[in-house]
Amino acid sequence: MHEEQRQRAHDLLRARGIDYALFTSSATVAWLSGFAPPVQTGPNLFAGGPPLLWYAGGEWTLIVLDAHAEAAAASGCSVVSYLGYTIAEPIDGHGKLSAALQQVVGTAPVRQIAIEQHNFPLYLRALLPEQATLIPIDGLLAPLRLIKTPEELVKLRANFALTDVGQAAARAAVRPGASELDVWSALEGAILKAAGQRVPIGNDCTVGRRAHRGGWPLDVTILPGDSFVIDLSTQLGGYWSDSCSTCYAGEPNSRQLAMHRTVSDALELAISLVRPGARASDIDQQVRAFIAAAGYPVYFHHTGHGIGVSGHEEPRIVPYNDMTLAPGMVIMVEPGIYFPDETAIRLEDALLVTETGAEVLTRHSKGM
Amino acid sequence: MHEEQRQRAHDLLRARGIDYALFTSSATVAWLSGFAPPVQTGPNLFAGGPPLLWYAGGEWTLIVLDAHAEAAAASGCSVVSYLGYTIAEPIDGHGKLSAALQQVVGTAPVRQIAIEQHNFPLYLRALLPEQATLIPIDGLLAPLRLIKTPEELVKLRANFALTDVGQAAARAAVRPGASELDVWSALEGAILKAAGQRVPIGNDCTVGRRAHRGGWPLDVTILPGDSFVIDLSTQLGGYWSDSCSTCYAGEPNSRQLAMHRTVSDALELAISLVRPGARASDIDQQVRAFIAAAGYPVYFHHTGHGIGVSGHEEPRIVPYNDMTLAPGMVIMVEPGIYFPDETAIRLEDALLVTETGAEVLTRHSKGM
Repeated sequence: MHEEQRQRAHDLLRARGIDYALFTSSATVAWLSGFAPPVQTGPNLFAGGPPLLWYAGGEWTLIVLDAHAEAAAASGCSVVSYLGYTIAEPIDGHGKLSAALQQVVGTAPVRQIAIEQHNFPLYLRALLPEQATLIPIDGLLAPLRLIKTPEELVKLRANFALTDVGQAAARAAVRPGASELDVWSALEGAILKAAGQRVPIGNDCTVGRRAHRGGWPLDVTILPGDSFVIDLSTQLGGYWSDSCSTCYAGEPNSRQLAMHRTVSDALELAISLVRPGARASDIDQQVRAFIAAAGYPVYFHHTGHGIGVSGHEEPRIVPYNDMTLAPGMVIMVEPGIYFPDETAIRLEDALLVTETGAEVLTRHSKGM
Repeated sequence: MHEEQRQRAHDLLRARGIDYALFTSSATVAWLSGFAPPVQTGPNLFAGGPPLLWYAGGEWTLIVLDAHAEAAAASGCSVVSYLGYTIAEPIDGHGKLSAALQQVVGTAPVRQIAIEQHNFPLYLRALLPEQATLIPIDGLLAPLRLIKTPEELVKLRANFALTDVGQAAARAAVRPGASELDVWSALEGAILKAAGQRVPIGNDCTVGRRAHRGGWPLDVTILPGDSFVIDLSTQLGGYWSDSCSTCYAGEPNSRQLAMHRTVSDALELAISLVRPGARASDIDQQVRAFIAAAGYPVYFHHTGHGIGVSGHEEPRIVPYNDMTLAPGMVIMVEPGIYFPDETAIRLEDALLVTETGAEVLTRHSKGM
């Protein structure tokens, strides 16, 4: 799994003269190995920290909690696991992880080790050879993540299919008198059933009145005439999806009808602009200008963003970003119109940049 | 919020001669401040790391992402927030957090700073005064967490009430032909509705046949005669709950009936043993002996564990632990019987150690 990612990383590290590296960012580890432990209940209580990935001149070793050894083995990396939960002695994930790291790094006269210092727990420093210089390389591999591999596209497509399921279930649950949490329960049940397992689910599930703040569902009753913003992301196999639709409790009024058409057209415009060579800032500017020209306030958020092992990554479709698109990138586009405390609408699709334009990866309804 | 926790910590730090400390463990920060950011979708993409809590001779300052400033302010600590999400410039949570930390620490000639090195991101080292010695104090405050404050008991009770709701919903959903995920969706919907918000939910929701491995629900169909183990924990206000019951798809058979009675009696025995001065290892040994004397294989896991800002903490009710109980501790007790790939039963209650014995905090049915 993820051999192509490791090959890309190996080539870059070799070109930089880096022989040893210890990766500690969960996103990097997921990208390099395909291994991503569950997040829904927070960090594992019995672990000494996040999974570690040790690179030694083209050899890759994952260091993980014993409970994760089987899942980690699917990566094709070597796996060293350490004791987590036990009733035989006090739990000591940090001590066990330390010993595992020392075993993996060994006693070779390593002179330099590249590290991700943003996610490097200080206590592990003492486990690396004292004489080794640590070279921070946070973000070094991020540009390699821009162009998705065929394997990543399979995972992303499976994930977008999950949000399609969630979107349909949510739309069916939106009605006057139901609460935001009712809609959430409906979509979560449908997504878990489709996935056959628990999956992390993110983003917004709110009546349009409060969608300008974004947010998770609350015990807010849906009123007749409310628009309802369903912005869903799921994580499966370490990869995130995203999507947004807006529907209505009853019939939309003429103002909502006009807004919805404008945002739908803005989304179509955004899709039409996505092709190799297109500049992120140009797409952003044109979609914002379209909303403004229609006489609406321009949305406060990004026009879009890349997606992968992180739910929001490059290329960001934002005003300052002069990055140009290339085949194999996967981006979200999501124009919206907001009248705070009144109503709101946002529509979002996922796009794979192809040789000639864009393939829409999301299949959910963006109708009314 | 949590003034008593901060007072206890202040007294201990002062007694140790510690004038400055930077807390980075989410459990410690939650215990000291009551602030706990959501975990369900993993670490916040726009943050420079977990929330930080700076201690300077009795003054406490939380350093948090801008999106969390309002929630953090409820702690009563000073709050310094930093920019996370923005479309005006590249996202730089690490740079912004660095600047905030430098602002808070200031330029005073600090000689020593106590830190939690297990959770201390290496890159923050360069932001602390170069001449300051870092003193690792991981775990130093953990013993202070053993005796719950009245404020903590309010939070824990609210949380156990949530698992009571989840348990009832799960029992109602267990029937032949339904799947483990159906039961999960039912209990999750009920818990979210009762909480009025999303809450992290953990532990096991499985047919008894596979309960020896523990685990999250899968697309496994419940068969007639299956026992079903519902082990639920929720997190609310930074505190965890826990609970376990076992029910049946149809009528339990005579073997299950006898097993259920034995575990129910073992739970009653455990509850009767909990009082100030009782030794954790003695309780563990007596409950295991009870199961063995009834002719069953003895469960592989702990007899129980403490609970609070962490879902599993001291006092652990395990064979090696000679810690004695004291009023104000909150512990779980959870005997079980497992016949792998056949059937299983586990029952669990939460207990507050009182001056004379134990008060049961969980109210869910442990019947058949």
